[in-house]
Amino acid sequence: MEFTVKQIAGLLGGEVEGNETLKISQLSKIEEGKPGAISFLSNTKYEPFLYTTDASAVIVDRRFEPKKVVKTTLIRVENAYTAFTLLLQQYEQFIKKEKYGIEQPSYVGEGTSIGENFYLGAFACVGKNCRIGQNVKIYPQAYVGDNVQIGDNSVIHMGVKIYNNTVIGSHCIFFANAVIGSDGFGFAPQSDGSYQAIPQLGNVVIEDHVSVGAGTTIDCATMGSTIIRQGVKIDNLVQVAHNVEIGKNTVIAAQAGIAGSAKIGENCVIGGQAGFAGHINLPNRTKVGGQAGVSGKWRQAGLSLHGSPAMEIKDSLRSSAIFRRLPLLEKRVQALENLKQEEKP
Amino acid sequence: MEFTVKQIAGLLGGEVEGNETLKISQLSKIEEGKPGAISFLSNTKYEPFLYTTDASAVIVDRRFEPKKVVKTTLIRVENAYTAFTLLLQQYEQFIKKEKYGIEQPSYVGEGTSIGENFYLGAFACVGKNCRIGQNVKIYPQAYVGDNVQIGDNSVIHMGVKIYNNTVIGSHCIFFANAVIGSDGFGFAPQSDGSYQAIPQLGNVVIEDHVSVGAGTTIDCATMGSTIIRQGVKIDNLVQVAHNVEIGKNTVIAAQAGIAGSAKIGENCVIGGQAGFAGHINLPNRTKVGGQAGVSGKWRQAGLSLHGSPAMEIKDSLRSSAIFRRLPLLEKRVQALENLKQEEKP
Amino acid sequence: MEFTVKQIAGLLGGEVEGNETLKISQLSKIEEGKPGAISFLSNTKYEPFLYTTDASAVIVDRRFEPKKVVKTTLIRVENAYTAFTLLLQQYEQFIKKEKYGIEQPSYVGEGTSIGENFYLGAFACVGKNCRIGQNVKIYPQAYVGDNVQIGDNSVIHMGVKIYNNTVIGSHCIFFANAVIGSDGFGFAPQSDGSYQAIPQLGNVVIEDHVSVGAGTTIDCATMGSTIIRQGVKIDNLVQVAHNVEIGKNTVIAAQAGIAGSAKIGENCVIGGQAGFAGHINLPNRTKVGGQAGVSGKWRQAGLSLHGSPAMEIKDSLRSSAIFRRLPLLEKRVQALENLKQEEKP
Repeated sequence: MEFTVKQIAGLLGGEVEGNETLKISQLSKIEEGKPGAISFLSNTKYEPFLYTTDASAVIVDRRFEPKKVVKTTLIRVENAYTAFTLLLQQYEQFIKKEKYGIEQPSYVGEGTSIGENFYLGAFACVGKNCRIGQNVKIYPQAYVGDNVQIGDNSVIHMGVKIYNNTVIGSHCIFFANAVIGSDGFGFAPQSDGSYQAIPQLGNVVIEDHVSVGAGTTIDCATMGSTIIRQGVKIDNLVQVAHNVEIGKNTVIAAQAGIAGSAKIGENCVIGGQAGFAGHINLPNRTKVGGQAGVSGKWRQAGLSLHGSPAMEIKDSLRSSAIFRRLPLLEKRVQALENLKQEEKP
Repeated sequence: MEFTVKQIAGLLGGEVEGNETLKISQLSKIEEGKPGAISFLSNTKYEPFLYTTDASAVIVDRRFEPKKVVKTTLIRVENAYTAFTLLLQQYEQFIKKEKYGIEQPSYVGEGTSIGENFYLGAFACVGKNCRIGQNVKIYPQAYVGDNVQIGDNSVIHMGVKIYNNTVIGSHCIFFANAVIGSDGFGFAPQSDGSYQAIPQLGNVVIEDHVSVGAGTTIDCATMGSTIIRQGVKIDNLVQVAHNVEIGKNTVIAAQAGIAGSAKIGENCVIGGQAGFAGHINLPNRTKVGGQAGVSGKWRQAGLSLHGSPAMEIKDSLRSSAIFRRLPLLEKRVQALENLKQEEKP
Repeated sequence: MEFTVKQIAGLLGGEVEGNETLKISQLSKIEEGKPGAISFLSNTKYEPFLYTTDASAVIVDRRFEPKKVVKTTLIRVENAYTAFTLLLQQYEQFIKKEKYGIEQPSYVGEGTSIGENFYLGAFACVGKNCRIGQNVKIYPQAYVGDNVQIGDNSVIHMGVKIYNNTVIGSHCIFFANAVIGSDGFGFAPQSDGSYQAIPQLGNVVIEDHVSVGAGTTIDCATMGSTIIRQGVKIDNLVQVAHNVEIGKNTVIAAQAGIAGSAKIGENCVIGGQAGFAGHINLPNRTKVGGQAGVSGKWRQAGLSLHGSPAMEIKDSLRSSAIFRRLPLLEKRVQALENLKQEEKP
């Protein structure tokens, strides 16, 4: 791939400040820029690199005013971050080689219908009576059980295991070794102290535009469905238990865990390693900090929760600040007690 | 599947209150009940749904007294929850299609003996000199190493990897992509700051009726065995390190982690994301809260531990309650100091 | 394997105290020693077992002075732990059966070069244009994408998935079901509340002598590389996000999570379930406790950090100690307030 600065500026609707004939062949971070690379400046923390970078061109916000002499060529756009993301997407389209066809050996069960442009990798299995949409890609060593539906343009990576009866929308992506639909963790205690497994007869329903990270596990419902709504993005090694429902456009960072029957609202942002008690109801637009432990009742939308047990962020920060100086606080109490002691006749 | 209310009541030893000729074709939660479905009421939190449900029948406790008019047909039994679990089990038996036979391509090593009713899925491997019991099912893309023993009726799901020399009892189940017997994490520090791996020559021994969740990892012992006792139930993405021993009938929720040589007692209940220090000894019947961090010495059986570092639950709740109002406590100390200041001549 | 005590003492450069003609056929922990076994004593906590063990021989430090009568034969060496590790390594060499050759069916793409003594397990895939060194072992059901480099003597276990363009050094080991190079978790928020995936076009670079645990996930960089430096040891179920760099000889215990663009120093020791905020800079030789939550700025090398949010260990322990007696502290404040109240005229 090689374009001139002028061509790229045209693509982005930007204005060139410098040499528009320079040739660009790669994208890079501003601190790693080399001749032939184009970079961007959005976070002002990285501004010092603008004056030293060897990148041939840098995309900046239209209103950006340099504080020093800039040697590199600038492309001014409305929003440098958005423009660079667009460039990344264009580049990805350019280099992406779509896979097609059915590699052998692989397995497709009876009664399964498959759309156009299907890719099935070697050593992958698709069960019976599945409905597979258009442009679906199933990579090597993946497993799709019986009666599974997969919508158009969804992609299933290597080693992903999808249990029977799972329903997957369109434009979804599952990264390597994710597991969808394994049994919920439900056991009935017996009088002798042992446990008997409660049959888990439900399934998992995943709507459109959902992303599921590597190694993440989503359990099937006991009855009914574990539901992941449209646009949800789940990172790696996340646990989603049986009968959970995750609302539209919620984002969940790595290693978070959501216990059974919890209902997570829409447009929530959940930090890494956060944990949610079973049956909890998390309102829409809640932000949850990393390692937070959320239980109890929360009714107001849009709160930020921190800590374990989780509190509103301002309360959590205040209490944590005093926790840091607890030894001092105890000394102050001790000093008051000593004074009191001295005062005694 | 279609039964009458009368037939189901007969199966459960229950009494019908309402129309016993109604046809039942599915099981559902009470809040999702539809005509043709049977549901149950156990937790009184769900009682309001009893008066509005469209389920054809609802199983209730024999002594339950409705507070309003009930339109649906009731089946009264000793324990509604237990009865419904039985129904789920019956239904599961009914719909379950046992798999048999050896799909191709797959691999079985020399010297391996296999019991009756064996199922080996496509792209699965079983090593040399294994002893595989009756009714064992090994699903596609699973791997069983050399010298592995698997007892009767155990089931190994897709993508599970079982290293050499693992011993597995009967009636065990392993969900997708679990890993059993990978090397313990042991390294000897060298004088140059690097580390040398300590060979991990032991194995994993898993007794009867153990359940292991999707993506869970259980490491082999350095020497001897990592031991999972009878009836232990382990959820998804749990880490069990080398030389750990987990006592009979202990239940471990998702993403908990148990460090090397820890010994967990019998009949413990361990919450999600809880962590255990190495070499710890956890007494029988200990309950451990989600995200708890357990270290130190614990001798008394039956305690409940919470928080990180973990404390007895009543102490943890009291301290946490004051943590929430620490800013207030600091202000009260400040007020006392101010008074003291004013008193000074 | 059978050796005399004399032969083993010769191998270790040790002196025998007792019967040097005894035959040794296995290694064991001192508390599990049986006739024919050799064990070691390093941690004095285990000294009581020395006087009761049935092991035929026990390796001890040269300067060790028994407090009671010892029935077993002793081998005295400079460092008992190091000597026993050496013995484990010798034993491992002895029993290890190297695998060679290409099992079928398996897949190797065009343009891929392969060194001597290659092992490729059944149902494994290696992509196009890879460079595979000498003595590389790729176990069954593993996947190696296109343009991947793997250095000499590296080993990839069952079910590991390595995405395109990953670079792996020599003497590395990857345990079962680890995932290397899946997409970083980067999304651009859209005006309608949905998110658009930011293309992740970088790769993962893993230097020599790195160990990666079972089920661990390491994401590729957005641009550039996620970098794991020489000698890093990573345990099971660890998450390493995009653009992270982990310094030389750092050790990371199970279920720790490192968010995007974090830079972890050299020779750090990181406890299980610890979490690191994005973009953090962790100095060299930092020790981080289990479940710690590390954010903010840390500049000094060699600190020990504990708690969430993480503090220096001595501060964390002091504050935690007072946290345990917060109810008492509150009562003391209450008592002072009551006194004050009484004093009032």
